[in-house]
Amino acid sequence: MTSVTYPVTLIGGGPGAWDLITVRGMRALQDAEVILADHLGPTAQLEQLCDVSSKHIIDVSKLPYKKSITQEKINELLIEHATAGKKVARLKGGDPFVFGRGFEEIQALTKANLTFEVIPGVTSAVAVPGLAGTPVTQRGIVHGFTVVSGHLPPGHPKSLVNWEALAQSRATLSVIMGVKNAAAIADALIDGGLPGTTPVAIIQEGTMDGERSFRCQLQELGATMAEKDITPPTVYVIGEVAGLTPGNRAN
Amino acid sequence: MTSVTYPVTLIGGGPGAWDLITVRGMRALQDAEVILADHLGPTAQLEQLCDVSSKHIIDVSKLPYKKSITQEKINELLIEHATAGKKVARLKGGDPFVFGRGFEEIQALTKANLTFEVIPGVTSAVAVPGLAGTPVTQRGIVHGFTVVSGHLPPGHPKSLVNWEALAQSRATLSVIMGVKNAAAIADALIDGGLPGTTPVAIIQEGTMDGERSFRCQLQELGATMAEKDITPPTVYVIGEVAGLTPGNRAN
Repeated sequence: MTSVTYPVTLIGGGPGAWDLITVRGMRALQDAEVILADHLGPTAQLEQLCDVSSKHIIDVSKLPYKKSITQEKINELLIEHATAGKKVARLKGGDPFVFGRGFEEIQALTKANLTFEVIPGVTSAVAVPGLAGTPVTQRGIVHGFTVVSGHLPPGHPKSLVNWEALAQSRATLSVIMGVKNAAAIADALIDGGLPGTTPVAIIQEGTMDGERSFRCQLQELGATMAEKDITPPTVYVIGEVAGLTPGNRAN
Repeated sequence: MTSVTYPVTLIGGGPGAWDLITVRGMRALQDAEVILADHLGPTAQLEQLCDVSSKHIIDVSKLPYKKSITQEKINELLIEHATAGKKVARLKGGDPFVFGRGFEEIQALTKANLTFEVIPGVTSAVAVPGLAGTPVTQRGIVHGFTVVSGHLPPGHPKSLVNWEALAQSRATLSVIMGVKNAAAIADALIDGGLPGTTPVAIIQEGTMDGERSFRCQLQELGATMAEKDITPPTVYVIGEVAGLTPGNRAN
């Protein structure tokens, strides 16, 4: 017995606002029968993008909270619905490959002899600072930027980041998932040679209703996080670009 | 005499395919009266996104080719049309702030007492490798990635990149505008400590009709560029992720 299966579509939903998904992503949502959605990205405003009443929507952020089990369960659900012949969309926040575990899902689908399509998304690590007035690159100032996860503190045995090298790289740093470890990250960068006076721009809940942003110096980063009671999702940008004047922003 | 002016909208058009612009970006194009467009991004397929016959479209890539003059001229045109009360959209490839000079345009608009809106875009440096099967991050392998311009060779007096530090950073490297200097960049990274056997994924004209991709080792990068006659726009990704098996990609 062979049944028709469709490629599973991994969609980058962008930083949060519903209309920051791509046109291709919106169309894929409209075409889908089953949507597995994260709590980040445009999930809360999905009705702006497609007729939700005609779809089976699974909010995978409500699966039991233990990361490794959840990812396995998500993989299982993708495979289950795709194998049943459904058009399955997997909606993620940001871009599927920027800390989105998109590739792990691809590997699981491939192992199950299923195919996939990928639709990239606007990544928060670039777009959120940009919208808030901090460009990650600027001619004559910086020729590169690094997006790095701050979910593990510098020196943690499982950390795969050489913070001292990043301090020397001359690239702008855009840190995501780094609220809890902000003070330790700032210390490691200063130890690595970045001046304590390096400008930092902090943006919480960028592109969403609760957006708040702050500026400080690198040496004040930990204290600022605590004083302002900053919580995830938050991005912070470290580098000379964070000291640029934002200009006459209308939006 | 005061006349009404509208905010100038800077739009990230994404990596090239017309439907990889955001929904917000498409709507802004539809609403615009004057569009200043680059040759990258969805410019060649603009008629898929809006009624081009009703708009004044200026292809700024056809302005006299001398970079600093062209940027000044673009700024002048933005100001001229906005001051005349037109709804002006500035359509760029990728994201306006990833080597897009978007912030320079913001600064010029602000100086002219005009306002602006920014609509972020999918950046080629992340999306193009992702679509071609190389994620810039993967859990357990890498916790960050650096997007860097290779338009100047390592050691050039105007270079703002510490390639040796990047070699030590443990982050994936995604190099744009780096075709011409590929061999010199590979040498600098190897001198900095990256193994010559580090996997590289090269993608030319990603998301567009002419897309071609290749894989090689870092020590073969310069030779591969020459042998395959690779030309811009090209992105190459250096790091363990470039050695992952792409999986059953359907698109």
